[in-house]
Amino acid sequence: MTGPVTPSSGRLQPLGLSDVRISGGFWGERQHVNGSASLEHALGWTERAGWVDNFRAAADGSASARRGREFSDSEIYKLLEAAAWESARGGQTPGATADLVATVGRAQEADGYLNTAFGAPDQPARYGDLEWGHELYCYGHLIYAGIAHARAGMPDLLDVAVRAADHVCDTFGTNGNDGLCGHPGIEMALVELARLTGEQRYLDQARRFVDRRGHGRLADIEFGRAYYQDDVPVRDATTMRGHAVRALYLACGAVDVAVESGDDALLDTVITQWESAVARRTYLTGGMGSRHSGEAFGDDYELPPDRAYAETCAGVASVMLSWRLLLATGETRFADLAERTLFNIVATCPAEDGRSFFYTNTLHQRVSGDIPNPNVPHPRPTGSVRAPWRTVSCCPTNVARLLSSLGGYLATKDSAGIQIHQYADADISTTLEDGRSVALKMRTDYPRAGTVTVEVEEPPDGPITLRFRIPPWARSSATVTGPDGTEHATAGARTLEVSRSFRAGDRIRLDIPVEPRWTAADPRIDAVRGTVAVEHGPLVLCAESTDLPDGVHVDAIQVDPEAEPVVNGEYVIVPGTLTKTPDGDWPYQKSGAGRALSRHHASIRLVPYHHWANRGPSTMRVWLPV
Amino acid sequence: MTGPVTPSSGRLQPLGLSDVRISGGFWGERQHVNGSASLEHALGWTERAGWVDNFRAAADGSASARRGREFSDSEIYKLLEAAAWESARGGQTPGATADLVATVGRAQEADGYLNTAFGAPDQPARYGDLEWGHELYCYGHLIYAGIAHARAGMPDLLDVAVRAADHVCDTFGTNGNDGLCGHPGIEMALVELARLTGEQRYLDQARRFVDRRGHGRLADIEFGRAYYQDDVPVRDATTMRGHAVRALYLACGAVDVAVESGDDALLDTVITQWESAVARRTYLTGGMGSRHSGEAFGDDYELPPDRAYAETCAGVASVMLSWRLLLATGETRFADLAERTLFNIVATCPAEDGRSFFYTNTLHQRVSGDIPNPNVPHPRPTGSVRAPWRTVSCCPTNVARLLSSLGGYLATKDSAGIQIHQYADADISTTLEDGRSVALKMRTDYPRAGTVTVEVEEPPDGPITLRFRIPPWARSSATVTGPDGTEHATAGARTLEVSRSFRAGDRIRLDIPVEPRWTAADPRIDAVRGTVAVEHGPLVLCAESTDLPDGVHVDAIQVDPEAEPVVNGEYVIVPGTLTKTPDGDWPYQKSGAGRALSRHHASIRLVPYHHWANRGPSTMRVWLPV
Repeated sequence: MTGPVTPSSGRLQPLGLSDVRISGGFWGERQHVNGSASLEHALGWTERAGWVDNFRAAADGSASARRGREFSDSEIYKLLEAAAWESARGGQTPGATADLVATVGRAQEADGYLNTAFGAPDQPARYGDLEWGHELYCYGHLIYAGIAHARAGMPDLLDVAVRAADHVCDTFGTNGNDGLCGHPGIEMALVELARLTGEQRYLDQARRFVDRRGHGRLADIEFGRAYYQDDVPVRDATTMRGHAVRALYLACGAVDVAVESGDDALLDTVITQWESAVARRTYLTGGMGSRHSGEAFGDDYELPPDRAYAETCAGVASVMLSWRLLLATGETRFADLAERTLFNIVATCPAEDGRSFFYTNTLHQRVSGDIPNPNVPHPRPTGSVRAPWRTVSCCPTNVARLLSSLGGYLATKDSAGIQIHQYADADISTTLEDGRSVALKMRTDYPRAGTVTVEVEEPPDGPITLRFRIPPWARSSATVTGPDGTEHATAGARTLEVSRSFRAGDRIRLDIPVEPRWTAADPRIDAVRGTVAVEHGPLVLCAESTDLPDGVHVDAIQVDPEAEPVVNGEYVIVPGTLTKTPDGDWPYQKSGAGRALSRHHASIRLVPYHHWANRGPSTMRVWLPV
Repeated sequence: MTGPVTPSSGRLQPLGLSDVRISGGFWGERQHVNGSASLEHALGWTERAGWVDNFRAAADGSASARRGREFSDSEIYKLLEAAAWESARGGQTPGATADLVATVGRAQEADGYLNTAFGAPDQPARYGDLEWGHELYCYGHLIYAGIAHARAGMPDLLDVAVRAADHVCDTFGTNGNDGLCGHPGIEMALVELARLTGEQRYLDQARRFVDRRGHGRLADIEFGRAYYQDDVPVRDATTMRGHAVRALYLACGAVDVAVESGDDALLDTVITQWESAVARRTYLTGGMGSRHSGEAFGDDYELPPDRAYAETCAGVASVMLSWRLLLATGETRFADLAERTLFNIVATCPAEDGRSFFYTNTLHQRVSGDIPNPNVPHPRPTGSVRAPWRTVSCCPTNVARLLSSLGGYLATKDSAGIQIHQYADADISTTLEDGRSVALKMRTDYPRAGTVTVEVEEPPDGPITLRFRIPPWARSSATVTGPDGTEHATAGARTLEVSRSFRAGDRIRLDIPVEPRWTAADPRIDAVRGTVAVEHGPLVLCAESTDLPDGVHVDAIQVDPEAEPVVNGEYVIVPGTLTKTPDGDWPYQKSGAGRALSRHHASIRLVPYHHWANRGPSTMRVWLPV
């Protein structure tokens, strides 16, 4: 199986990248840009920034000064993973990757240790700073890159990964160093390596790392131990907290351990954490992490749009977690969140040309920023314009590996048939459990329109069930029409299905009404009180100053949610007013005093949130005052 | 003159600590607790934390490992400054301070260099990390401590300070190191030293440091150069930005340089920055700095109550800046902000017993925290409970020096008479410019009540003017009544005055109507849309879970601003409801859907914000949903 996650049990089975090939449309375009532009772009920057040279220096034992942050090795590994998935899906692998694999291999020490920032004569000692050193975290990405290479038919990097994993098991096993990494990530990699190789020791070591966390073995840093989830054992925690990417990677690893161990209690715990985070700590966009300080989840309902951190990597991690929970449980709610996060975080990160990226994904930009200097890595995660590269460039590489493997996240199979979770132009071809083959061709303009057709290209013998996920906002009125014209619809159903024998050329049509709609927030989300947002199918929309009269700021907008939003070409239009508020010397006044200097009616144009800032610096807001 | 700021010119002249003695009431009580408890408490902690030992080690050349952050020397200096003002105002100086002064002196090197974190054989080199090293910043506090000691009649520490200042001028002068400190602060200290000693070179060096900043000489760190105001020269900047304490200390220094140089353009620039920050970047409490990340001012109108940083030190620095601007211009608006900040930030920091402190001053606490471990420094600035000490304990020492010198911030004089800016029980006795003596006794229950009486104890020969600042919220209806019963009142006037000859025993009565009132925010402050606050005289009020039925969270509160708030004993009562919102699995729903699970009417009790968390951990909010 060529996908990234291959559980040995679970309600649904994944389809690999060779089974599901995205052929065009919204995601096909992004996969194409990713493979043809972003990968080369990012590999070029890792060279320019000296991060590849770090491996060369480690391989040669030369004394050149190391460049980049302590975790920069992991960006190389993520790009190697992306290149492997790109190859597995039938795309082009950038030419540099074979050399890169060899360089990485040469940098590995005899005992399997591999990190360019530690352990050499002039460097800090191995494992002397588990809080911040990221050594085990980097192995996690190395191991995943090795797995992806092996699944794409290129075994060299897997050898390196296995040596590193063996070194980790030897060093951090039962009688070894009883520490753990300040950044989770290795857990899921070890489980997947166990799945690939059949070696139990990797799974055992993953479980050990999961179980060690939460007992205060790491230092009580300024952010608190919650930052790296070392405050409460994962089995006892009731919600997601601390650094969002760390929390979500840990949850992925915990699900993997639970699934491979039949540890239902652990799985249930993670589901409880997911439920709590989704109900109280998630942005409308699916973004997670509301605090810049510590890149962290905030308290329940602490979701300020203007200071949303919503790191792209947390979005990627959330999709990874949702996918694991979907496979384990078969529950569509996990695919619902994945869809929201894919369209509104993952798709927002890269520019249309795939050569600049958002790191944070704010829902309200008050000040229109500057275009970053294209010649130096941007020193900050924030900004109202995407940057070509950053001193911390975890997000472009993370999005690259997700986009290149995205085919693996669309559909699953079980004993009854095929389940389609995400809608895209894709060719699906797989073998069911009972040995029957099936091939389907899915075509759609989703998310612009809600019609999805599935043509049966190769029907299996006998009946199968094709099941379609119905997004929550469409559950009252979605329909599916079988090849015989029979319409299936159940108001409120999470899925609709057609269950029958098919002939080649049979078509099934899914109709999801994709209309723009007003959305309001729980009153406990103080930061958006008195505002509404507009969603359109799975897309969150936003107002951008680019679409306002010259000199008008998005903060002048007020809208009337009594009126219906209307689709007009590329825009959704809502009626509203533009209000000019007079400046004063103190912004707090006797309650009830009116303050508008001028107010006039206007049609407010909204664009998909993922599209924002593609037309240059702007101010922007998702939540619009009523 | 025994006050902290002694400009050689300006619209108003300060009165020293020997001229204005706070005798009781709101501030007298806090001054007493500060002198009798907080100073000893803090000095004890600097010993326990090893920060005094750092000086001993530096003095002895011993190799004991240094403890504390790179700026911990400055906490000792701030406590020495506080102890000196305490002595100057007639209080007790803690016994340890004489020894401490000697220890500090012994730690100074032959060339005047003094810092326990740099320059010794095992330490980083002097001035090798101007961005973060805080060496010049620490001199700033040393110099101020030396000045305070000299003004309290204890010259020893001034000798140390002068040697350090000379070393700075030698090292960072015209032909020397052209760098500047990542943390402003030394500028105002050098100006004040020039005022005390008459040495022009200190003023020149202060001007040099002010002028050097803003040209990108410091590194472009992740927070950006705005963090330490090295993004734009102070003369070109139009608002406050970056780290709030740094921005405010720099502004203080710039005002001092401007005043001593007759540089009106520089003074006007700082006033413009102040106006902009006050109109768009200041909390209702007077708190400044809305970002945890970088402890920084946010964008205009970015004032989230639940993530208000509003560092206590920024409040102290804001009072220092307001005072300088008041002296320079005579404009009461600066005293207005100082009053707000004193009652709602400075008074909020220490617990009633003066032995634990807030560092940040949030306006909305969603989660009631734990009582900090009293035996170890708290590793974080945040929390819903005051902490006895922190690894970064700048705030307790800063409040200590402000409270001990607070008498110097109440009143001024000019050629016409006395101006009273802040109301407190205080005995005022000074000599006017023309040599006439005057003594006044001010008594009041302010801020609980708005009557202030001033008894003339020693009348000057001939007429003088006693002028009283009228807070903005009282300008429509305040009155002042002279000894002959004549009532003076001008609706909207910023000051009221009595101008005449007085006899001993004459009484003037000021009546400021102190009623609770509803306050609303500028609609551009998104984070408090749809809410109101209640103020009572100069006090901001808040709702605390301590005053709600068991298990009810402050987020259940809704209030009706149509009704009048009513004073009831210690509380102000407003009518409202307590609403229970049902939990869902996703916090965003179709606009217009109702959500209350239950709702019942309640009288909501409000307490002064400065009082919050004095009754144990709680949830709290200032801005109440309508």
